Amino acid sequence: MGLTLGEIARQTQGRVVGDERLRVSRVSRPEDALGPNELVLLLSAEAIARLGDSPARVAFVAEGLGLPPDRLDGAILVGRPRYSLALLLALFAGPPRLAPGVHPSAVVEPSARIGATAAIGPLSYIGEDAVVGEGVRILAQVTVGAGAVIGEGSILHPGVRVGELVRIGSRVTLYPNACIGADGFSFATAEPSGIDSARSSKSVQVETREPRRIPSVGGVVIEDDVEIGAGATVDRGTVGDTRVRRGSKIDNLVLVGHNSLIGEDCLIAGQSGISGSCIIGNRVAMGGQVGIADHMRIGNDVVIAASSGVSQHIPDKSLYIDTPAIPYAKWQERYRGIGRLKRLMQEVRRLGERLRLLERLSGSEGETEATAGSADRGQVSPDR
Amino acid sequence: MGLTLGEIARQTQGRVVGDERLRVSRVSRPEDALGPNELVLLLSAEAIARLGDSPARVAFVAEGLGLPPDRLDGAILVGRPRYSLALLLALFAGPPRLAPGVHPSAVVEPSARIGATAAIGPLSYIGEDAVVGEGVRILAQVTVGAGAVIGEGSILHPGVRVGELVRIGSRVTLYPNACIGADGFSFATAEPSGIDSARSSKSVQVETREPRRIPSVGGVVIEDDVEIGAGATVDRGTVGDTRVRRGSKIDNLVLVGHNSLIGEDCLIAGQSGISGSCIIGNRVAMGGQVGIADHMRIGNDVVIAASSGVSQHIPDKSLYIDTPAIPYAKWQERYRGIGRLKRLMQEVRRLGERLRLLERLSGSEGETEATAGSADRGQVSPDR
Amino acid sequence: MGLTLGEIARQTQGRVVGDERLRVSRVSRPEDALGPNELVLLLSAEAIARLGDSPARVAFVAEGLGLPPDRLDGAILVGRPRYSLALLLALFAGPPRLAPGVHPSAVVEPSARIGATAAIGPLSYIGEDAVVGEGVRILAQVTVGAGAVIGEGSILHPGVRVGELVRIGSRVTLYPNACIGADGFSFATAEPSGIDSARSSKSVQVETREPRRIPSVGGVVIEDDVEIGAGATVDRGTVGDTRVRRGSKIDNLVLVGHNSLIGEDCLIAGQSGISGSCIIGNRVAMGGQVGIADHMRIGNDVVIAASSGVSQHIPDKSLYIDTPAIPYAKWQERYRGIGRLKRLMQEVRRLGERLRLLERLSGSEGETEATAGSADRGQVSPDR
Repeated sequence: MGLTLGEIARQTQGRVVGDERLRVSRVSRPEDALGPNELVLLLSAEAIARLGDSPARVAFVAEGLGLPPDRLDGAILVGRPRYSLALLLALFAGPPRLAPGVHPSAVVEPSARIGATAAIGPLSYIGEDAVVGEGVRILAQVTVGAGAVIGEGSILHPGVRVGELVRIGSRVTLYPNACIGADGFSFATAEPSGIDSARSSKSVQVETREPRRIPSVGGVVIEDDVEIGAGATVDRGTVGDTRVRRGSKIDNLVLVGHNSLIGEDCLIAGQSGISGSCIIGNRVAMGGQVGIADHMRIGNDVVIAASSGVSQHIPDKSLYIDTPAIPYAKWQERYRGIGRLKRLMQEVRRLGERLRLLERLSGSEGETEATAGSADRGQVSPDR
Repeated sequence: MGLTLGEIARQTQGRVVGDERLRVSRVSRPEDALGPNELVLLLSAEAIARLGDSPARVAFVAEGLGLPPDRLDGAILVGRPRYSLALLLALFAGPPRLAPGVHPSAVVEPSARIGATAAIGPLSYIGEDAVVGEGVRILAQVTVGAGAVIGEGSILHPGVRVGELVRIGSRVTLYPNACIGADGFSFATAEPSGIDSARSSKSVQVETREPRRIPSVGGVVIEDDVEIGAGATVDRGTVGDTRVRRGSKIDNLVLVGHNSLIGEDCLIAGQSGISGSCIIGNRVAMGGQVGIADHMRIGNDVVIAASSGVSQHIPDKSLYIDTPAIPYAKWQERYRGIGRLKRLMQEVRRLGERLRLLERLSGSEGETEATAGSADRGQVSPDR
Repeated sequence: MGLTLGEIARQTQGRVVGDERLRVSRVSRPEDALGPNELVLLLSAEAIARLGDSPARVAFVAEGLGLPPDRLDGAILVGRPRYSLALLLALFAGPPRLAPGVHPSAVVEPSARIGATAAIGPLSYIGEDAVVGEGVRILAQVTVGAGAVIGEGSILHPGVRVGELVRIGSRVTLYPNACIGADGFSFATAEPSGIDSARSSKSVQVETREPRRIPSVGGVVIEDDVEIGAGATVDRGTVGDTRVRRGSKIDNLVLVGHNSLIGEDCLIAGQSGISGSCIIGNRVAMGGQVGIADHMRIGNDVVIAASSGVSQHIPDKSLYIDTPAIPYAKWQERYRGIGRLKRLMQEVRRLGERLRLLERLSGSEGETEATAGSADRGQVSPDR
């Protein structure tokens, strides 16, 4: 049981120092290792400091940290540690435990088609005409709505809700309680509403009477290799589909609104919200709690800092930050300006004092004060 | 099957151009239409551009866009497109698929009362003494707690949790995994806490020892025609009820805190959070990710921009924005001011240079510098 | 049935005025009381005003409010009202209704060990080798993953998801649809990514190709007396454990990222997000919608204002606010400065006018203008 250092190194882009036949049972942090055959992670100088008198004798080490050679019996050195860590842990991460076949407590409608190698967990429900592909693992208490399609090899964790006619690609992971295919949040009023008024005139002139739902009759398409986090929601389109393209990863409690398109290989961190009808490019990264207003266009390779609120389109390869979001360099300049406000106010006060003295010297005091109005230095004091 | 242009026009406040007997099978975006009897949505000039060589021959068109008459066999022209779209899609949006009656896998306590025309989906649980009204559709894997009441015609999507004694009105929609009736987040400490200290003195003087829950023994009332989005949570009141009034629409992942009152016909967009003991007026609209501090009073017809954080009361018919939220006009003035900071700093530097020259000319240099202290122009440079 | 004023007073740190043998059936707000034996809460002058002609004859009253003595037959006076309220309501808050034993519709794997006094609700699933302690109440439709441990006396509300091998302490409450033990959101790329570029150079130089998940092979530990709100998520650690220490209270829809450590007795309000690998001290309080960047260190007794975004470490006993979060006093100074910007611009314009007059008087006008460049007063006008 376990893997040898040599086998691991070959699959993690690493090279072995020491005995490559040493066997590893599991991966540990240096402070947690219980025995000599746990592979401890030494990816920072600080982790090495935590090694202490650990019983560990094998390690997975970032290049250039400089290990004392007699502390370990063997090590794997890696040049791009986080990437190699991903490869390493994939060797040790098992799939969730789930018996093959359809659990007797699951409810599967007779018209649903279930792949021969798919597993349906306890107390899950598969609706009419739904299609569950080969190798799919549906864990406990999942809902797959009527007519939905789950592609090969996908994993649906407990409590996932897949709405009617939603299409999920292959090798997709939906984490617990993720919800794909609720109706979009879209309403209209017979007469112009307070929201219309706020948009056009920046004030609220009228009352918003009886908002009426615009039902979502479109679907949702989640393409291959996408992951959607725990409790996240992706709403269906109004008439067309809401879509998350191949390879994108969406974190917990993220909201993707109706009609929006998320490009390929995006990384959208927790609690971010993408409103309706947005088009997000490929390889876009968002920090946590980002908000995107509706109908925004975000280019390719954009990075949006955490907590930002986006209310204008963003061009390719940009770094945006703040609410309303602006380019980073512009924000930095503004933010520094705000940090200097106190000194600026002091400077202006001093200029006023010097000017008053000059005015007194030149005998023009009354005249310029009259020109300038009632300004006095206290007005810009930071002390009030 | 399907509807004629004439029938649709009568129910969508539209008028027919061309043959009103043409039949429509479904509604499509122009780029998605597969055949001549799909009604394509042409609600913008940009949508018309996407029509291209679509096989569509019937369309739902915003007035004033100017269609080429020979491109279509018939069209419905509408003057308020989004509202007519709501009416149109209501004709095509079917209810979720659910067999009538109580599914054999559902667990219904004997003391629960289920309306004769209600449907209870697979693997749902209805607690003791709960009341489920006529025409209610409870989909799969829903929980209705003991003593809860679900009014006529309401729809509870999969995974909804309704707590004990919660009262849900008629024609309410609860989207998947919405949770009504968890305990409020409310704690007290025997001695003044760090939070008390931060509130009163704006600094943390003491440690917060052993926070003790204030249990929620109150309930939740969701009035008629309310909708609550996927994953949203509405907590029960401390002693009285938390309440969402008639017609309000709450989006996914919104949090409504204990004791709060949401008025009628409000629209609260995704991931907004209303803390405990707030009173929100009627027809209030919030963009996404708005936060409202506890005990706030928000007037009627208020619009709060997305991402805002509200920590003061807001009067009727106001548009507020920013964190802390302020009236829009005031924010706009401030925001413009910040945008001009760099130029302001340059202007102050130039004034200093001009003043220094004047001082030199007047022979007063040492004197005024002494008055003004150590100010120098570099101090406000935007380049540092 | 019910409790006497005397019994209640002894358990709520109160003292009785009037007849201490009076019996109380339930606790009410003054406007809700239906009869004389409901104990009405009079914790503010405003509540007393709402008493009106209520039939209530007994009350729970904050010291110092000064009740008219003939309005009531008895009262309990309390000196720290919110704390006494917590004690009072604990006397009246029953546990959720749940039959003892394992419900016949629950699915419990044979290898799971269930305490003799534990209750497992309808349609819940307990995985292989899971351990459910004495007195645990697992309500309807809960998932307890393989190998997970639930400590004595804990309550798991409907729809809770506990992942494999997660360890839940004693007297823990998990509210509906809370999700403990999803995988962390952690990805790596073979080549430096756009995010790496944004971090190091504050611009996006490269494309982020094929993000690869770093699987979470660690666990989650929720210590004793913790509460986790509805829909909240706590992800498992990469190799070690994510941990929430004893007594901390986490509100609805909060996200706790992989590897993070939440200290003891923290209060984290709704929709806050703690990214991966954070270390949060003891007795930390966060308002709603706070965001904490990854790898942050937050000291003990820190208070973070609602809506703040933290991207630097925070020392003990600090009050931080804003995005990026800064100490309160510093923020207050900056915020006041921004509020004075308009007047500052007016002041600078006036200084320019006075200076121009002086220059004219001294005959130096052309010379200084040349030195100062093209500055003119309109440049900083707030009116443009």
